[in-house]
Amino acid sequence: MKKTNRRQALRLGAALGSGMLARGEEPRSLGAPLGPYGERSPFVKSARTMRQTKTPEAGSSATPLAETFGILTPSSLHYERHHAGIPNIDPATHTLTIHGLVDRPLVLTMDEIRRLPSVSRIHFLECGGNSGSEWAARNAPDVQRSYGLASCSEWTGVPLRLILNEVGLKPKAAWLIAEGADACRMQRSVPIVEALDDALLAYGQNGEPLRPAQGFPLRLLTPGWEGNVQVKWLRRLHVTDQPYMTRDETSKYSDLMPNGKARIFSLPQEAKSVITFPSGGHKLPGPGLYELTGLAWTGRGRVKSVEVTFDSGVTWQPARLDEPRFRMAFTRFRMPFRWDGKPATIASRAIDETGYIQPTREELIAARGVNSGYHFNGIKLWRISAEGSVTNVDA
Amino acid sequence: MKKTNRRQALRLGAALGSGMLARGEEPRSLGAPLGPYGERSPFVKSARTMRQTKTPEAGSSATPLAETFGILTPSSLHYERHHAGIPNIDPATHTLTIHGLVDRPLVLTMDEIRRLPSVSRIHFLECGGNSGSEWAARNAPDVQRSYGLASCSEWTGVPLRLILNEVGLKPKAAWLIAEGADACRMQRSVPIVEALDDALLAYGQNGEPLRPAQGFPLRLLTPGWEGNVQVKWLRRLHVTDQPYMTRDETSKYSDLMPNGKARIFSLPQEAKSVITFPSGGHKLPGPGLYELTGLAWTGRGRVKSVEVTFDSGVTWQPARLDEPRFRMAFTRFRMPFRWDGKPATIASRAIDETGYIQPTREELIAARGVNSGYHFNGIKLWRISAEGSVTNVDA
Repeated sequence: MKKTNRRQALRLGAALGSGMLARGEEPRSLGAPLGPYGERSPFVKSARTMRQTKTPEAGSSATPLAETFGILTPSSLHYERHHAGIPNIDPATHTLTIHGLVDRPLVLTMDEIRRLPSVSRIHFLECGGNSGSEWAARNAPDVQRSYGLASCSEWTGVPLRLILNEVGLKPKAAWLIAEGADACRMQRSVPIVEALDDALLAYGQNGEPLRPAQGFPLRLLTPGWEGNVQVKWLRRLHVTDQPYMTRDETSKYSDLMPNGKARIFSLPQEAKSVITFPSGGHKLPGPGLYELTGLAWTGRGRVKSVEVTFDSGVTWQPARLDEPRFRMAFTRFRMPFRWDGKPATIASRAIDETGYIQPTREELIAARGVNSGYHFNGIKLWRISAEGSVTNVDA
Repeated sequence: MKKTNRRQALRLGAALGSGMLARGEEPRSLGAPLGPYGERSPFVKSARTMRQTKTPEAGSSATPLAETFGILTPSSLHYERHHAGIPNIDPATHTLTIHGLVDRPLVLTMDEIRRLPSVSRIHFLECGGNSGSEWAARNAPDVQRSYGLASCSEWTGVPLRLILNEVGLKPKAAWLIAEGADACRMQRSVPIVEALDDALLAYGQNGEPLRPAQGFPLRLLTPGWEGNVQVKWLRRLHVTDQPYMTRDETSKYSDLMPNGKARIFSLPQEAKSVITFPSGGHKLPGPGLYELTGLAWTGRGRVKSVEVTFDSGVTWQPARLDEPRFRMAFTRFRMPFRWDGKPATIASRAIDETGYIQPTREELIAARGVNSGYHFNGIKLWRISAEGSVTNVDA
């Protein structure tokens, strides 16, 4: 056993209980039997929050980021954003059609897709509208309701480029129109660019088939891009020379700039991070040593570093990052935090491998105005009161 | 878009369907609404298999390895091996006691444990009895029932050495007696050795709290060691100068050698691998291109390479490994497999970073005899018939 140093032992001291030795023995009865499919403990009640809506088929539900560990999101708690509900698709009859500006159009069954060479990779998914409330109202009380339209899974699927190579793109091919099998026939225009080399036709999530709410039996996965373009229940890829300019790439998921023009196809999600503990709704039981932690991600590759402030952004300190850091994946950061019982304003900022630094909300607004509800990646401040209550500093 | 080469396109050809273009449109109705906690598709029916037993509280259930993707096992399908059922523990009242040959004995609540510095890592767990039927009967028809007492998760917890440092080990401290809160008070003696530096007091699994069947709210995790020593529902660590010599480290989980002496405390699981597709129970629909895939792992660090044979071990070819390869974690291997329609006998063997090569069953028996039912890591052969049926070559 390696010895850790004395200072570490002393620092830890404050966090440990002072209770001594074992309690009396209680009688124990036989537990529950083995089973074919396990469930979580009845004492664990983490749940997605849903926005109040009259049409729960067209809405969103958010991951309880403050209640997750590591970098994976349990599939049952992956955020949702649906436009016409979750279809119940029989994989035995589902097909993917690839046609348009190709030499050899194809219809593939799921069995055929699952026979092809595949890869597994850990990637985040984030809704282009995540943190939309941070532009204006800023009244979300916790990290789930302000940053929870983001999740991270291990995805398995067939590299899209393998399929595109197989069908043979004609010289003018420049866009894919991805279409879902949901009732709204979700369509998004996907540019055929180098970044698409990472894309998957994904059928696996966290070791099992995709969950219905994430596109079972097949979805498009374009790592790092906004979630809406990663069409769920994927049934068709129409290869074209121009985008369709659908609703969700013009009036929605676009960025109306201060000059009245809209930025469209803002696909990569820029570097972002948020402290998940302590965060809105938490109550620190008293002064002492805690582990501050949170999540960072970027649609541009790897997170290079995460910095944390305890004085509202005056000074920043580097956090420890869990390794390995995957491209376009959640990165968990951690930092010892000795709270002295005084009010404090804390925040994190991510820096990605391109050198991009997560901006303050003020910097974002200076660049992009407040006409847009999408693609907010500003720094999130949390306030700790003298009583240990943690609240949204903007609420 | 990068061009892949023409040969790859041609090779792929045989695997793709020849169907053309989209079917007629069917009417679509609104799907299911958003929800707080998601479920899998009703079309997905993967389940653990259970050994027939009159006492399902004391038995095992196996992961359907052939139905998982990537390197993670869905928590609901993680293998089980319980000796007195699964207790239903309230984390608000659960405590961990550390006492014995220590300077400062401690009782920690779950809240106190969760405040401490933590890490998240992906590790496999394997029952010391996994593949026990391969020693003798060899009648398991598929990979689930022969190799399925192994699973892989992202685990989150507090480094054990941090706690041991805090309590202060006395000079004679050499063993930890880990005790569970299940009805049999599972106890295992854990040597305090360098390898234990990796150990965690784990409370998180795949992003959420441990599942009850994996030890909620707290288990010992000693990466790479047999599952039984990684005590679930952990309630006590008694620091001693010698092992307790409990039932599960003497008459069970020990290796009775040909000379009549038993090897005990064979904790690290040696390098092992198995082809999961094609494997027992599969039926190849016809000659053509497939992706052969499987899982490899070792309790000694990283898997260095995996080799595959298509001729019953006469020749071996290197498989492609998914990256990154984690220490003491499943490693997914893949290889294009063009089946010519003739009978074939296929297998994989893992080589780990120590240079150890997964042995044949015959080599294992030459070294260890057939008195033991534990710690089998021999090469697993599958036979493909001319009709494409895949069976256990030994059955």
